Order: sequence, then structure tokens, then C-alpha cells
Amino acid sequence: MKTVNKSEIFDEKKTSAIVEELQPTLFDLIALGLIIKQAHWNVVGPNFRAVHLHLDEIWALVQEDVDTVAERISTLAVSPSGQAHEVTDNAQLTHIPLGFLRDAEVIDLMTDRMSTVCHNIRERMAKIEDTDTVTADLLHQVVDGLEKQLWMLRVQGM
Amino acid sequence: MKTVNKSEIFDEKKTSAIVEELQPTLFDLIALGLIIKQAHWNVVGPNFRAVHLHLDEIWALVQEDVDTVAERISTLAVSPSGQAHEVTDNAQLTHIPLGFLRDAEVIDLMTDRMSTVCHNIRERMAKIEDTDTVTADLLHQVVDGLEKQLWMLRVQGM
Amino acid sequence: MKTVNKSEIFDEKKTSAIVEELQPTLFDLIALGLIIKQAHWNVVGPNFRAVHLHLDEIWALVQEDVDTVAERISTLAVSPSGQAHEVTDNAQLTHIPLGFLRDAEVIDLMTDRMSTVCHNIRERMAKIEDTDTVTADLLHQVVDGLEKQLWMLRVQGM
Amino acid sequence: MKTVNKSEIFDEKKTSAIVEELQPTLFDLIALGLIIKQAHWNVVGPNFRAVHLHLDEIWALVQEDVDTVAERISTLAVSPSGQAHEVTDNAQLTHIPLGFLRDAEVIDLMTDRMSTVCHNIRERMAKIEDTDTVTADLLHQVVDGLEKQLWMLRVQGM
Amino acid sequence: MKTVNKSEIFDEKKTSAIVEELQPTLFDLIALGLIIKQAHWNVVGPNFRAVHLHLDEIWALVQEDVDTVAERISTLAVSPSGQAHEVTDNAQLTHIPLGFLRDAEVIDLMTDRMSTVCHNIRERMAKIEDTDTVTADLLHQVVDGLEKQLWMLRVQGM
Amino acid sequence: MKTVNKSEIFDEKKTSAIVEELQPTLFDLIALGLIIKQAHWNVVGPNFRAVHLHLDEIWALVQEDVDTVAERISTLAVSPSGQAHEVTDNAQLTHIPLGFLRDAEVIDLMTDRMSTVCHNIRERMAKIEDTDTVTADLLHQVVDGLEKQLWMLRVQGM
Amino acid sequence: MKTVNKSEIFDEKKTSAIVEELQPTLFDLIALGLIIKQAHWNVVGPNFRAVHLHLDEIWALVQEDVDTVAERISTLAVSPSGQAHEVTDNAQLTHIPLGFLRDAEVIDLMTDRMSTVCHNIRERMAKIEDTDTVTADLLHQVVDGLEKQLWMLRVQGM
Amino acid sequence: MKTVNKSEIFDEKKTSAIVEELQPTLFDLIALGLIIKQAHWNVVGPNFRAVHLHLDEIWALVQEDVDTVAERISTLAVSPSGQAHEVTDNAQLTHIPLGFLRDAEVIDLMTDRMSTVCHNIRERMAKIEDTDTVTADLLHQVVDGLEKQLWMLRVQGM
Amino acid sequence: MKTVNKSEIFDEKKTSAIVEELQPTLFDLIALGLIIKQAHWNVVGPNFRAVHLHLDEIWALVQEDVDTVAERISTLAVSPSGQAHEVTDNAQLTHIPLGFLRDAEVIDLMTDRMSTVCHNIRERMAKIEDTDTVTADLLHQVVDGLEKQLWMLRVQGM
Amino acid sequence: MKTVNKSEIFDEKKTSAIVEELQPTLFDLIALGLIIKQAHWNVVGPNFRAVHLHLDEIWALVQEDVDTVAERISTLAVSPSGQAHEVTDNAQLTHIPLGFLRDAEVIDLMTDRMSTVCHNIRERMAKIEDTDTVTADLLHQVVDGLEKQLWMLRVQGM
Amino acid sequence: MKTVNKSEIFDEKKTSAIVEELQPTLFDLIALGLIIKQAHWNVVGPNFRAVHLHLDEIWALVQEDVDTVAERISTLAVSPSGQAHEVTDNAQLTHIPLGFLRDAEVIDLMTDRMSTVCHNIRERMAKIEDTDTVTADLLHQVVDGLEKQLWMLRVQGM
Amino acid sequence: MKTVNKSEIFDEKKTSAIVEELQPTLFDLIALGLIIKQAHWNVVGPNFRAVHLHLDEIWALVQEDVDTVAERISTLAVSPSGQAHEVTDNAQLTHIPLGFLRDAEVIDLMTDRMSTVCHNIRERMAKIEDTDTVTADLLHQVVDGLEKQLWMLRVQGM
Repeated sequence: MKTVNKSEIFDEKKTSAIVEELQPTLFDLIALGLIIKQAHWNVVGPNFRAVHLHLDEIWALVQEDVDTVAERISTLAVSPSGQAHEVTDNAQLTHIPLGFLRDAEVIDLMTDRMSTVCHNIRERMAKIEDTDTVTADLLHQVVDGLEKQLWMLRVQGM
Repeated sequence: MKTVNKSEIFDEKKTSAIVEELQPTLFDLIALGLIIKQAHWNVVGPNFRAVHLHLDEIWALVQEDVDTVAERISTLAVSPSGQAHEVTDNAQLTHIPLGFLRDAEVIDLMTDRMSTVCHNIRERMAKIEDTDTVTADLLHQVVDGLEKQLWMLRVQGM
Repeated sequence: MKTVNKSEIFDEKKTSAIVEELQPTLFDLIALGLIIKQAHWNVVGPNFRAVHLHLDEIWALVQEDVDTVAERISTLAVSPSGQAHEVTDNAQLTHIPLGFLRDAEVIDLMTDRMSTVCHNIRERMAKIEDTDTVTADLLHQVVDGLEKQLWMLRVQGM
Repeated sequence: MKTVNKSEIFDEKKTSAIVEELQPTLFDLIALGLIIKQAHWNVVGPNFRAVHLHLDEIWALVQEDVDTVAERISTLAVSPSGQAHEVTDNAQLTHIPLGFLRDAEVIDLMTDRMSTVCHNIRERMAKIEDTDTVTADLLHQVVDGLEKQLWMLRVQGM
Repeated sequence: MKTVNKSEIFDEKKTSAIVEELQPTLFDLIALGLIIKQAHWNVVGPNFRAVHLHLDEIWALVQEDVDTVAERISTLAVSPSGQAHEVTDNAQLTHIPLGFLRDAEVIDLMTDRMSTVCHNIRERMAKIEDTDTVTADLLHQVVDGLEKQLWMLRVQGM
Repeated sequence: MKTVNKSEIFDEKKTSAIVEELQPTLFDLIALGLIIKQAHWNVVGPNFRAVHLHLDEIWALVQEDVDTVAERISTLAVSPSGQAHEVTDNAQLTHIPLGFLRDAEVIDLMTDRMSTVCHNIRERMAKIEDTDTVTADLLHQVVDGLEKQLWMLRVQGM
Repeated sequence: MKTVNKSEIFDEKKTSAIVEELQPTLFDLIALGLIIKQAHWNVVGPNFRAVHLHLDEIWALVQEDVDTVAERISTLAVSPSGQAHEVTDNAQLTHIPLGFLRDAEVIDLMTDRMSTVCHNIRERMAKIEDTDTVTADLLHQVVDGLEKQLWMLRVQGM
Repeated sequence: MKTVNKSEIFDEKKTSAIVEELQPTLFDLIALGLIIKQAHWNVVGPNFRAVHLHLDEIWALVQEDVDTVAERISTLAVSPSGQAHEVTDNAQLTHIPLGFLRDAEVIDLMTDRMSTVCHNIRERMAKIEDTDTVTADLLHQVVDGLEKQLWMLRVQGM
Repeated sequence: MKTVNKSEIFDEKKTSAIVEELQPTLFDLIALGLIIKQAHWNVVGPNFRAVHLHLDEIWALVQEDVDTVAERISTLAVSPSGQAHEVTDNAQLTHIPLGFLRDAEVIDLMTDRMSTVCHNIRERMAKIEDTDTVTADLLHQVVDGLEKQLWMLRVQGM
Repeated sequence: MKTVNKSEIFDEKKTSAIVEELQPTLFDLIALGLIIKQAHWNVVGPNFRAVHLHLDEIWALVQEDVDTVAERISTLAVSPSGQAHEVTDNAQLTHIPLGFLRDAEVIDLMTDRMSTVCHNIRERMAKIEDTDTVTADLLHQVVDGLEKQLWMLRVQGM
Repeated sequence: MKTVNKSEIFDEKKTSAIVEELQPTLFDLIALGLIIKQAHWNVVGPNFRAVHLHLDEIWALVQEDVDTVAERISTLAVSPSGQAHEVTDNAQLTHIPLGFLRDAEVIDLMTDRMSTVCHNIRERMAKIEDTDTVTADLLHQVVDGLEKQLWMLRVQGM
Repeated sequence: MKTVNKSEIFDEKKTSAIVEELQPTLFDLIALGLIIKQAHWNVVGPNFRAVHLHLDEIWALVQEDVDTVAERISTLAVSPSGQAHEVTDNAQLTHIPLGFLRDAEVIDLMTDRMSTVCHNIRERMAKIEDTDTVTADLLHQVVDGLEKQLWMLRVQGM
């Protein structure tokens, strides 16, 4: 955590505890967003259109989550970080292969990456459940949206 | 350039010439988008609100340009690339400092980064002006939009 | 619980614990929706119009809840069930009398049925409050909406 | 037919003749709506997304038909019936299997159930073609919409 | 029937047969519209608001019917007539009492006037059912809409 | 003036003075609306489309004025009157010829009738300018709108 | 009729009888649409703007009818046909002169072509009135819309 | 707490415990809304426009919270209170100075008052976290929105 | 009147004369708005829904008037005042009883309070009719809107 | 005043008296609109964005006033005048300096020019207050809108 | 080229050179539009829905291009031609087979036909690049849109 | 050219070359906009309505072009100029006669003025085609729009 200003909401210790879970979540979500766009542009195969459109809907959801999480960090008077090199160094998410990708392969890759992000956020969320119910509720909603999309991806791979 | 499929539009040589200018443009625009969001979340000072809102408008414009350029590459039957580590390695754009940033400083940083991107794209654009007028026109519009925002940033620093 | 696929979110035991509360909630909500429509078509009396329109608003809310709950079950990789005979056999809700119904009677019947559903969901919700905060939050919102409508019905019977 | 009030539109005999065709239509359409939602939530396979979205469009159409038919019965001063147990006992439509269903199977099941409902309504419609042209026209539109969806389902199974 | 131009659609005899049913329908619908507005402005009592709003919705429906019928006459190359003195002389509809009217009284008066208009149109409609199915279908829709409103009024008087 | 209830706004004498100017205005505006529709349906000639569309816009304006004036009377606790026979007996406006009308003739007829109504309202408006500035302002707006349309009609006849 | 699949709606004979009237209707409507666009682009004269805009409205209506009729054929499990050479060979409609056309001439040409299409459809409609009331009602609506436009064109030529 | 009706949701003791935290929250939010409007009208200085518009957005948010909290009290069958004298006597919030206020001063005043309200609600929220998770979630959302605005105000004062 | 800046519009004396009528109007309107919300939340009885919705519409109107009047004071370069304690001390309006209120009682209370406010504003309006026609017209519109609502309330109590 | 046609509204003398105040108002408003755009394009400095957007809102208001005043002149059957050379010769408004302008300077210049226009219109308005209340009300609204903007500009210069 | 009026834009030689490229483009685009609709109605197979919807989007794009090109010809004062027989005789595009078509076959056929049209337009575009940059830019946009769709079709066939 | 700031885009010489073509274009477009409004208010004759509406559409287009050109000048760091006296002195466009104008005359005048502006811009555009393709493309779009309107005007004069 870099610059901590004095916040009117919590003392510094509590603030740090919360942001320690939010900042890595932000890195993961930004990386996920870029992976989704990569797939959106590179998917090929008979289901191209359905997958292409579906990925853009998930991207819009993830982009909204990115803003929600970053602005919650700012709300707690800590500076959020999200530029390319920081994301590359810190996101806990394997990138996907370069080049065109067949539609079925895209479904598998996305199911895997989305699942990883959901598990990561659930673990972090558990740690602050009692520290700040307001932040916890924000993460519940992030997870709820991502898990619903996970279902929609998962059943396409069955 | 990784995977080149056979395109119905141009032969491989002409395709490569065009994509060699589009792919670095894509890297720059993605990096620029992440820098703009970083500033959007970290700006402080009396002009916070005006700058905060303005940056989100520029971000929306840049995000649209990102999709336009990436999908033009796909249209030419080449796989576009835009994940975090690729952007970090290839974008020709210095990141901005971590932590909170005063409003006037943000204006200076954004004017500088936008200016760099505009010059880079103008140089690349010049090389394909005669190769493919359709792609050239797309880049004209990208530059036109970015330069207009550059004006709006520049005058705030006067 | 019929077909449990392997879910990436929880182990089978935890999944079952959650779905055991969600599936009966789904049956109740579908039955409630059909009861509301029955009343919507059969209400008579001087307050017909206000009651007729009010019931359609409640129905739209309940229908949205139906989708939310069913898709949460699917999200957990369990098959939700909601056809007519399943609802008839499992919903914990007494049907309302056949034939036309006077407006005041409709208010009493609806207050009673809505109240029953709210209590049922509150009891189930309590059991998973700690098991899965994400699902719990979903049910909080379902209950919040239904209870607000309950107030609007209750005061019409005073 | 339960409660027949005195109607200003037709005498009791004519009213009964019409409602005898409308009430079973109402039962079939409600059952069909629940079957469609069941499939909407339980479909799996590569075409998940297209089928999932398509079923919601058909459901919206059927739900509108449900209201049209029920309110036509009320308009004729007869009480319409549509609660879960009544639908279970009276709808002339076999339910679909429990559990998840593959996309191709869903297409077959829906084609079959939609086809059954269309034939049932066409038979009933024929009986009142001369009794009440106004009601007949309503059913023409119901059938027209359902048959168009039937085409869109049928060709997906080819 | 005043001015009959030569129509490309039907010969003069058939045209006259149709318009003989449409013109009196037009007079009735205009008179009905003015009666509804009179009631809309003069209703008093505890149900004022619901009745006041409901009448405006019915008026909008009737006004649309007025245009549909008048323009169908024009379509058949006959001049439609609808000024105040012509409506006064020809509409087969008793006006309602002057002065303020209690809400329950308004319901009775409207039920009666709407019922009269429906019966009149049904009689006329029957005469052209075989002459011109296109015009007949238009009248089916007019009657369908008015009878649905009749239901909504009738049940308020129960 | 028929039924005068006790109003909280003005005493009976002042109320009567105002309504004496509003009620004839209401009769004129209703008659004008029916005349406009008559022309809307009966216009023929090369400018049919422009005139037909223009008349519907004026009608919408007049219909809004009708409601404004009638509801102002109700606001003053007096019953407004506007059924067909009352309008026929009281409106100070000559009806237009039956049958189809050429476009240029329609312009002349409408200019004349609109001009008459404007003068009538201006005279009545002058009488209550000091009695009730609130009602006066309402009439200013009615006149402003009608006179603007008068210009648009007048120049078409030049 | 080329490819007849097995339909769930009618037997092959009944299906053929209906489609024999729908397919030529489709050819006529497509030809009519192209004629309208030709006039839309080539009209000149003082009424240019009104005619130019009016033709685009009629075109939108005709294009909707084209889809309605073609998809009804598909619904009956027969392949509809509508490419340029098929339309040229089969449409029963004389094309209009090449080159620019004065506004009054356009009105005459359009009135004639629209009138021809209306008569053709009315004749075909009559043959299936009892075979399939659902298809018949679709054609009623097509004719109703076209005849209303015919009125609007006819009066402009007066 | 004044009038407690019998509620179907909780017993009287639990109801009281919840409302004891909601009613003072309601007083604070109403007072805050009036303070925000006072500042909205009285702000002066170079940043007038940004502050003036920003305050109206916060006001709209607070007004929505006012309704949410008051209607939750009603939902629990207790009468909410919110008239001017009750707010004056009970709100735990110091008013701001009369007269025009410079833009920077407004930012400081608003940061202080918003901060006070957030702390008050957090304390009350903590007391009912386990009593009623549904009400608690409502307050989480109220606090989340206010704290986000607090950030936006705070950084303008840096 | 507290802080009077130099205005470009009127001299200080004229300004004071106008604001002396506007500021008490502002106090009354704010108090009225809070009374309306109090009733909106506390109404019970069979007409709950109509009254509940109606009050929210009136509230929206009053809130708009509050802004209009306050910003007119600012326009005249005087600081408007509207916080809770100022309203409590200065508004010339009796508050309504605490606790739930039956629907008929609400109608009576609202008719009385609205009537009081209308009379107060009419008296103040009369004093500035000649001083500033622009401000006077603003108040005409405020009164016109309130009196129309007064009618709608009054007839519900008949 | 150039071409006066015979008007149905007023005699020539009264018409001239009104238009003598309206035409110079039109010149001033057009000049003001062009000045506002000049400032909109040339403003620089830290408040660029707020001022740039604000000026466009004022411009839209002024442009609406321009149309209102010009069309009122036409309504009175006099030809309005508003081309560049006429505005240059007749508008009573000093132009602003060429070249870029700092934000604070823009606020001062606009406050001055808007103030001049308001005073000019108030003087002209006073002369026709009794001649034509309809035109007077139009000018009240023009002034009300401009003075409100004047407040918003003035406080930014404090 | 049939009727060339005198144009204010170019001399006759330059005009002819441009239109010689635009008119065949118009024929191709109209033929393409009809082919797309043919496929839209005749596609069958598991991907029916995605292909059916996609084709309608492409059709809307092509139809817009048709209008753009035709109206550019008119703008140059030459009469555009686009009726069925002219298109049949002049379009440089092979029609597709009659009868139902499987989804994969449709993708291949459309990729081929779209590719042909793109190449044809690129060749014509090259010839007028220097003659008229305004027309050239229009064709750039037509090609850009078609090529993007070509990508979306091409990847579905991989 | 007055104040040239240092621009990040081009050196001073290139900047001047471009702005020397843009500034006179701005003068012409502003003058054209005022001429169009003058005609909009002064047109008389049977085609009044079509011409009046058409001119407002052209005005909106021209006004958008004005902003585009002026802001492009600012983007190049040069101050644009557009006040009334500057336009009067520099626009290369003859004004139109004062007083009312018949509809046919308006068409001729507008065709002439629009044609002049198009030629002027085409000449200037040609000079910068190679200097700055981005600015050139902006002018292509301006000319494309104006020439399309020129067609629509020209054919009305035939």
C-alpha cells in the first residue's frame, strides 16, 4: 500500500486490512478484462457470433467491477493502482495463448480464468466479512455477477 | 505478427504492411486507457470533479478506438494482441507516478501522454496512407478525436 | 436434489446445503406468482383498478425474483425445477378460492400469502447466512422487496 | 365453468360456448410458459446462449398470450382460473424431464410441446370461428405468433 | 353519404354498404369521447383519482378508434363527417347529466354508455363481415378494446 | 353556470366572473378541435400530406388547451361542460362545409376559424386580466400557441 | 413450389394451396419496394420533400410486409424465394420509367402500382379465407396498411 | 416510538430494536438534505458550477435514502416521523452558517457534515447487524453511497 | 434579509421588497414538502395506493417550486435560507399529527394545508405584481400548479 | 420596420409598437449568441471545462429565445430581420476581444454582456406590458432565464 | 448514364467519371441485399438463430449503403437506377441456390458474395480516389463496414 | 491569424497553412446559418411548412459544422473568430433580401448560397488535402452533408 491519507472512516490499521484484499482484486479484474477482450477479438468457429457477443457482455460487467473496487479504495483514502506494468507484475492470473482461438477452446479458457478470479475474491472477501460489512457487500455483488456468468460459460462446455 | 490466415482482402505482404502499423497502435491505446483510469481514480484538488468526469469521457473514446483498431486487424485476418504483459512489453508510453496526484499535475501528465500517442499514430498513419485508404480513414478518425481532447486538456494547463 | 454436477464454486455438501433452501423458495415464488395473476384477473369492486394495477407490479417483482433464485441454483451447478406439477406438489402455500373475489378480500388473501412466503424465506435465509454470504445477500433483496409490498397491502386492509 | 355473472355482451349459452374453448387454452399456455422457463434454466451445451436467450423471447410472447386469453374470459364476465394445481390437473401437455438438458434435446422438446399447443388451439379456434369473430381474431394472433416460433425452433433441429 | 369519389378498391354499391356501417360508428365514438372527457372533469368522491386517470386512458383508446374509423372511410374514397352539430344530430347515445358526478355514478353511467356503443358496433359489424374482411377486422379490434374496458368498468360497480 | 360548490380560492362572485369567460372558451376550443379533425380527414390535393400532418399538430395543441381550460374551471370548484349537444348550442364558431376539401381551401377555412377563436379569447381574457392573474396567464399561453399556428397557416395562403 | 418439408401445421395439399397465394404476393411486394425506392431517389419538383419523405414511410411498411409474408411461408415449412432474377421473372407489376420524375407524375405512378398490388392480394386472399384463418388475417393487415397509403396518395393527385 | 401496529414480520421487541436505529437515521438524513440544498443555493466562487451541480447529485442520493429508510420503518409497521420541527429537535447534525458561502468553504462544511452522518449510521448499523440482515443490508447501501460521495468531496479539499 | 450583495438587476430597496415576499414563501413550501412526505409514509386505509402515489406527485411539484423560488432569490443577489431550524421557526403552517393516518383524514389535512399555502402566496404575490413582472409570473405558475392539485384533493373529500 | 402585411391580430399601429421592441431584442440576442460561441471556443485556464460546458448551455437557451422572438414577430405579420450585417449594424452590444481568453476573464465579460442584454430587454418589456400581455409574458420568460444564468455567472466571479 | 442535369458541383465529364463507378456499385448492393434476405428466410440447422439474426444486421447495413450510394448519385444530378429488372441485368453477383440452406452453407455463400462485392467496390473506388475525395470517403466507409462483417462471417466458417 | 500558441501537433508554418483555409470556412458557415434562419422565419406561400421545416434541418447541420470547424482551429492551438462584425467583414457570401419571401424564391436563394459555400470549401479543401489528412477528412464530411442538402433543394426548384 503506497500513500495512505488520513481517512474519516476507519483508522489506518483497519483501512490497511481492507485495502490489502481490494488492491489484488483490482489487479485480477483488470487482467481478466484484457483477457476477455483478447478472446473477443480472436475467437473463430461456428459459434463465433454467440461467443463474441457474450464476451462483450462479460467485459462490460468486469469493467464496472473494476471501477467499483478502485473507487472503494479511493473512498477509504488509499491510492488504487492499475497501470499495465503493475497489473502484469501483480495479477494472479495466467494469460491465454496468442493467436486465433476456436470457440470451444475460448469457452474452456474463460471458464478457467473466471473460476480462478472467483475463488481468489471469495478468499479475500472472507477475511474482511467482519471488518467492514459495507465493503463485504460490494464484493458479494461482484462475485454474484461473475459466478452467474461462470454458469453461462460452464454449460456451454458441456 | 503471429498467425496470418489467408485473407480475401489483400495479399500477405500488403496485409503485413498495414498490421505492422496497427498492432503497435493497439498497444499504445490500451496502455493509454489504463493510464487514464489510474488518473481518474487518483486525482485530488479543487478541480477534482471536472477532471474526474473529463477523464472518464476520454477513456470511453479511447476504449472505442481500441475496439476499432483491434477489429480492423481481425478483419484483415491477423490475430490482434492486447493482454497485460504484451502491452507492458510493447507500448511506447511511459507510465505515470503511483499515488494520489494533484489536479494540475494530472492535466500536465495527460497532455504529455496524449500528445505522444497522437504523434506515434500520425507517423504510422503516414506510412499506409496510400496502401489502404480504408484503414487510413479509420486512423484519421482516431487521431481527430484524440487531438480534440488534447486541446481541451492543453487549455486547462494555461 | 436431482442432478448435481461438479461445481467450481463449492464442494457437494456445501452446495446441497444452499440449494436445499433455494429450491423450496423457488416453488413458493412460482406458486405466489400464479396466485397473484389469479387475483389480478378475478378482482371486482370499487377499488378494482388500483388493486388490479398494484397486483401486476407485485407480479413483475416476483417474476424477477423467480429468475434470480432459479439462476442462482444453476450457477451452483444444480438443476432447478419449476414446472406446474412440481410446484403443485411442493409449494408451501395454500391456493386462493376460485371465482371472482371482492377487492377487500383480495387484500386480505394477498397479505396472508405474501406474509407466509416472507416468513418461509426468512427461515431458510437464516440457515445459510454463514454458509454463503453471496446467496444470503440475494435472499435479503428478495425479502426486502416482498416485505415492502406487504406493507403496501397491509395498510389497505386497515 | 364456475361463476357466470350476467354479461352485457352475450347470453349465457353463447358465453359458455366461447369460454369452454378459452379456459383450456389458458391452462395450456400457463403450463407451456412454465415448461419454457424450466428449459431456459436447464439447457446445457455449445448452443446454450442462443437457446437460453431464444427461450426467454418465446416466454415473453406466451406470457402476453396468457394475459390476453385470461382477460378475454373476464371480459365475458366469467372467472378465469390459472393457479398451479388447476394447471396441473387440466393442462393437456406432458411435462419435460427433470434435470439438465442438452441444447439439441431442448429444441426437440420445445418443438413438440409448442406443436401440441398450436394444434389444440387451432381445434378450439375452429369451434368458435362463427360464434364470436372478436374472440376468434384474438386466437388467430396467438396461433400466428406461436407458429412463427415453431418454425424458428424446427429449423434448428434440421 | 355525401361525396362519393370513384375508388380503386370497391364499386360504389359495395363501398356504400360498408360506409353505411362506418359513419354511424364514427358519430357514436366521437360522442362517447366527449362524454368521457365530461366525466373526467366532473367526477368527485373518494375514488376520484383512480376514476379520473382511468377515464383518460379510455379516452385515448376511443380517440385512436375515431381516427382509425374516419381514415378507413377516407381510404374507401368517401368523405367522413365528424363536426359537433353532425355528431349531436346523429349519434345514438344519450348524453350524461350536467354538473359534478359522484365516482360510483360515473362508473354506472360509463358502463351503460360503453355497453351501448359496443352493441351498436357489433350489430353493424355483423352486416359487413362477408362484404369486406379487412374493414371487419378493424372493427373487431375496436370492439375488443372497448369490451376489455367495459370489463374493467363493470367490476368496479360490483 | 350550473353547480357552484364552495371554493377555498375565491368568493362566489369572483369565481363566476372568471368562469363566465372560461366556459365559452371551452365550447369554442372543443368545436375547433372537431373542425380540425374534419379537415384532417377530408383534405385533398397536392399538398395533402403537409396539411394533413400540420392539422394533427394543431389538434394536439388545441386538445391540450381544452384540458387546461376545463381543469381550471374544476379547480375553481365549478362544473365544466363539454358534451356534443352543449358544444353545438353554445360554440361561437361556424362549422365548415361537408365533403372533401381542396388543400388551399382548407388553409383559408382554418385561418378564418383560428382567427375567430383567437379574437374571442382575447376579448374574454381582457375582462379577467385584473381579476385573476393566474387564470389570465393560462389564457396568454393558449393565445400565444394559437396565434403562432395562425401565422403558419396564414403564410401558406400567401 | 420448390422444397416442401414435412410441416406440423397442415398436410402437404393444404400447405400448397396457401403458399400458392403467398409466394406471388411476396414477389409483388419486393418489386413494389424497389419501385418505391426508385421514385424516392428520382422525384423532382416543388413537392419534392413531402413526396420524398412519404415514399420512405411507405417503403418501411412494404419492407415489413415482405418479411411477414416470407416468414409465414417458412412457418408453413416451405422455402420462400425473393432474389432479384426471381422477382424480375415473376412479379405482376410493370416497372416505372427510368430517369428523374416530376412529383405529380410520381403520385400517379405510385397510386397505379399500389392499386394493382392491392387488387392482386385481395384476389389471392379471397381464395384462402376459409383454408387458414390465421394466414388470412395476416393478409388483411397487409391490405389494410397498403389501402390506407393508397388513400393518402390518391388525394394528393386530386 | 409512537404507534406500533402488530407486524407480521417481527415481534414488538425486535421491531423496536430495529426502529430505534432507523428513526434517528431518518432525522439525520432529512436534515442533511436541507443542508445540501442550502449550500446548493448559496455557494459562490470560481468553482460555483461544479459544486452547484455536484450538490444536486448528492441531494438526489440522500432523498432516495430518506425514502428507503422511512418506508422500511413503515414496512415494520411503525409510523416514521419527518416533519420540520421533529427534525429540528432530533437530528444530530449542526446546521451550516447563513448567507453566501465560498466554494472551498462549502467543500469543508459538506465533508464534515457527511462524515458525521456516516459515522452515526455506522454505529447504529452495527447494533442491528445480527438482528435483521435485511435492514442491515439496506443501511450498507446507504453508507456505501454516502462514503463514495465523501471521497469525492474530500479530495476537492486537498 | 441577511447578506445583500450588489445586484445588476434592481437597486437594494426594490430587491428587498421582492425578497420579503419570496423568503417566507420558501419557508412555507419546504415545510409543506416535509408534511407531504410525512403523509406519504403514514397513510393507511383502502385508498392507500391512490393517495400514496398522488402525494408523491404533489411532492415532486412542490420540490420544483422550492428550487424555483430559492434560485430566484439568489438571482436577485440575496442569500436564500432553508435549513430545518429556520423552517421550523418561520413557516406559517401547522404540522400534522404524528402516527398513522387514515386515507380520508389525509385528504382533509392536505386540502387544509395546501389551501393555507395558496392563500399566503396569493397575498404576497399581489404585493409585487407591479414591482417585478418577471418574479410575479413565476409565482403565478407556482399558484396555478398548487391550486390544480387542491382541486384534485378537494373532490376526493366530497 | 420593413414589410407589414395586414394582420388579423392587431391594427398596424399597435403591431408597430410591439415590433419596435421585439426587433432590437432579436438583434441583441443573435449578437449575444455569437459572443457566447466565441468565448466557448477561446476560453483557456484551469476552469476551462466547467466554463466551456456552461457556455454551451447558455447558448442553447439564447438560441431558443432567438427563435421565440423572431417567430413572435412573424406571428404579428411583420418580417423579422437577423442576418450578419444587420446584426452588426443594430445590436446594442460591444463585442469581446479577439484571441484566447482566460477563464476568469470570460466570466467577467459574459456577466457584463448578459447584464446589458437583460437591462435592454427589461426597458423594452416595460413599454409593452399593457399593449399586449401575450408578448409581455414571452419576454418575462426570456428575462427570467437570462437573469438566472446571470446569477450563475456572477457568483463564479466572487 | 441516362439523364444528366446540369450540376453545380462538377462539370459533366467529371460527373460521369464518378457515376460510372457508383451506379454498378448500387446494382451490386441491391442484389446483395436481396440475397441476404433470401438466406435470412431459408437458413436451417443448429446455428439457425445466430445466423438468422446476424443476416438481418448485415442487411440493415447494406440497405443503408444502398441509400447512401443512390443519394450520392442524385446529389451529383444524375438519376440513379435500382428496379428489379435493372438489378437482374446489371449486378455482377451470382445468385444463391433456391430452397432451404444449412447454416454452414449459408456462411460459405455469404462470405463468397460479400467478398466479391468488396473487391468490386475497391476496384471502382481506386479509380475515383483523386477525382472526388468526398465520394471516395463515402465508399471507404461502405467498404469498411462490409469488410468488418466479412471477418465475422469468415471466422464462423473456420 | 491572431494568437498562435505553441501546438504539440504541427510546426507554426504547417499550422498556418491549415488554419488559413479553416477560418474563412468558419466565416462562411456562420453567415450561411444566419441566412438560413432569416429564410426560415420569412418564407411564405403554399409550401411554407415543408420549406420552414427543411430549413431548420439544414440549419442544425450547418451549426454542427460551425462547431466542428471552430474546434478544429482551437485543436491546432489557434484562436478561432466568429463574432457578428468579423463575419460581416469576412464572409464571402451575399446576404438575401429583407422582408417576406415566397417559397419558390427561397429555394432559389438557398440553392445559390449553399452552392457558393460548397465551391468555396472545395477549393480550400484541395489546398490541404496532402498537408493534413485528418483536417481534410473533416472537410470532406462537411461538404458531403452540404451537397446532399443542395440536391434536395435543387430538385424542388425543377
